[in-house]
Amino acid sequence: MEKVVLGIDIGATSAKLGLVDSAGNILVESSIPTPVNTSGVSAADFVKSLCEAAFVLQHQAQAPVELIGIGVGAPNANYNKGTIEFAANLPWQHEIVPFVELMQAYFPDLTIRITNDANAAAIGEMVYGGAKGMKDFVSITLGTGLGSGIVVGGELVYGCDGFAGEVGHFIMVPNGRRCGCGRQGCLETYVSATGLKQTAFEVMSRRYFTDKSLLKAASFNEITPKYIADAAQQGDSIALEVFEKTGEMLGLALANIVAFSSPEAIFLYGGLANAGDLLLTPTRKSMRDNMLKNFCKRTDDGQFVQEPNALLLLSKLNNKNGSVLGAAALVWHKK
Amino acid sequence: MEKVVLGIDIGATSAKLGLVDSAGNILVESSIPTPVNTSGVSAADFVKSLCEAAFVLQHQAQAPVELIGIGVGAPNANYNKGTIEFAANLPWQHEIVPFVELMQAYFPDLTIRITNDANAAAIGEMVYGGAKGMKDFVSITLGTGLGSGIVVGGELVYGCDGFAGEVGHFIMVPNGRRCGCGRQGCLETYVSATGLKQTAFEVMSRRYFTDKSLLKAASFNEITPKYIADAAQQGDSIALEVFEKTGEMLGLALANIVAFSSPEAIFLYGGLANAGDLLLTPTRKSMRDNMLKNFCKRTDDGQFVQEPNALLLLSKLNNKNGSVLGAAALVWHKK
Repeated sequence: MEKVVLGIDIGATSAKLGLVDSAGNILVESSIPTPVNTSGVSAADFVKSLCEAAFVLQHQAQAPVELIGIGVGAPNANYNKGTIEFAANLPWQHEIVPFVELMQAYFPDLTIRITNDANAAAIGEMVYGGAKGMKDFVSITLGTGLGSGIVVGGELVYGCDGFAGEVGHFIMVPNGRRCGCGRQGCLETYVSATGLKQTAFEVMSRRYFTDKSLLKAASFNEITPKYIADAAQQGDSIALEVFEKTGEMLGLALANIVAFSSPEAIFLYGGLANAGDLLLTPTRKSMRDNMLKNFCKRTDDGQFVQEPNALLLLSKLNNKNGSVLGAAALVWHKK
Repeated sequence: MEKVVLGIDIGATSAKLGLVDSAGNILVESSIPTPVNTSGVSAADFVKSLCEAAFVLQHQAQAPVELIGIGVGAPNANYNKGTIEFAANLPWQHEIVPFVELMQAYFPDLTIRITNDANAAAIGEMVYGGAKGMKDFVSITLGTGLGSGIVVGGELVYGCDGFAGEVGHFIMVPNGRRCGCGRQGCLETYVSATGLKQTAFEVMSRRYFTDKSLLKAASFNEITPKYIADAAQQGDSIALEVFEKTGEMLGLALANIVAFSSPEAIFLYGGLANAGDLLLTPTRKSMRDNMLKNFCKRTDDGQFVQEPNALLLLSKLNNKNGSVLGAAALVWHKK
């Protein structure tokens, strides 16, 4: 019987499930809705629904499979404790949910691991993606916010409390944009789907009278990263400046990350990564401008050549079901 | 026979040597001058002098000792390769010196390890100091510049190339103060012995006409961190603002470090750490203001209480020969 791991990705609107083999193929998948914040659904009831969906999924595989473990990616998940803690976008925002313990009741003999979605993406990159064989790398997840997973010596960095890797909450601009975390100037208020929109409106507020732009037709609620990217592809100068400013800020943050842990590569994962060169080019330029020379490749004569092109890469899990793969990789990584 | 490790700390003016036992006692110590930049002394000749001093030292111990290894702390040292690379303050600034290989010729059977002085301080803290038993912590060395050693999962973070831990070169202020590395706004231009002096003159340039200050009597060449600290202890308002601003910047950088690797503690080591509460108090305040709530301790009712007091500590190696201890700890840490 083929061995599989159940990967579960819990998002704000739905939870995706998939049975994943050791090579990273998703044999079957399904999803259930995540209860909305105001639903009053208890964490125990949600876990019951998830486990029932998992039982059904096992019977949908074409050939019989042997389930060897469950990996879960979820917001505010704590790997060390197996909990989801105070997750703002889930109905249990004031609770510490003992998620692994609740699931273990349904699968008493299985390895069950949970971590946040950005960490799961990093593990997925290492097991199935562009970081295969790398010991030191960083994965940046660009979604509504900015998440990060940091791998040092082949292991994810969890820190003393399981909460390491909050690069999205680097304070980049003291007294800058207001962040959902209650502070100001966090990286994710500039570099994320939301940050990109905010930057679009900042640039428009400055150039509104002097420049034509496709962006003028969209409200804040309507505008999306794809909308801005499409405009930029058509040469819209305001949309292009939005990506330049976003890359400038991301490159500065990445230069500081490189100074900290000197990774072999940094991977961009998530919706905004689909902007490709629109984001990569200004980010690499900013890294080149801001990185300590030590961290750039050297030519043979001892002269420094700054070369962040090989350092900043797009994730190989983009456009796949990367979040489910990453969750499953949590178990495959250490069987 | 008692087992000892030879710890060597190579500084810009002298190299200190000490025989260190497993408990962190320095049995005997000595030093030789580091050749000045313009001396033309080759790296091979300097290593020969060091090894001769080491042979002499072994005979100065009160009882016979068994030398089991050599640990070296040096600027721009690369642990992975055993080299000192392009060290600006040593006569071999354009060379990659194969330091371990050169020493190994004199001590063919011994384990010899080299790392930069800030990494050595971190290992020393873990083996002999306040980080005993900790798996995740950061050590900040405040000297002429700002060095750092980052420990994750009980191991020093070297990164893919041996150069991780360059927190002193976090860019904190785009287009800020000029740094020796050729860039602008690096943390160490604000937080270090040199940075403190620069801040003193910045504050004076703003408040010169309105405030009395002891600092007005000293030239830039004369002024020292101790001079500024002594003035602050006497209530000198300009000197106090210098420490406040320094702590503010350090606290912001440390808040970002906490978001990255979530350490159990951060230790301040080196001359500037002797300023004690003058530096600790504003730094802790800034951490409190800038840290993500997750990383502060929680009370039982799930409310957050920000408590960086337990997170930011003074090194227990200050006022000891910490750099020699740290170098020796490189070997004792992994026998």
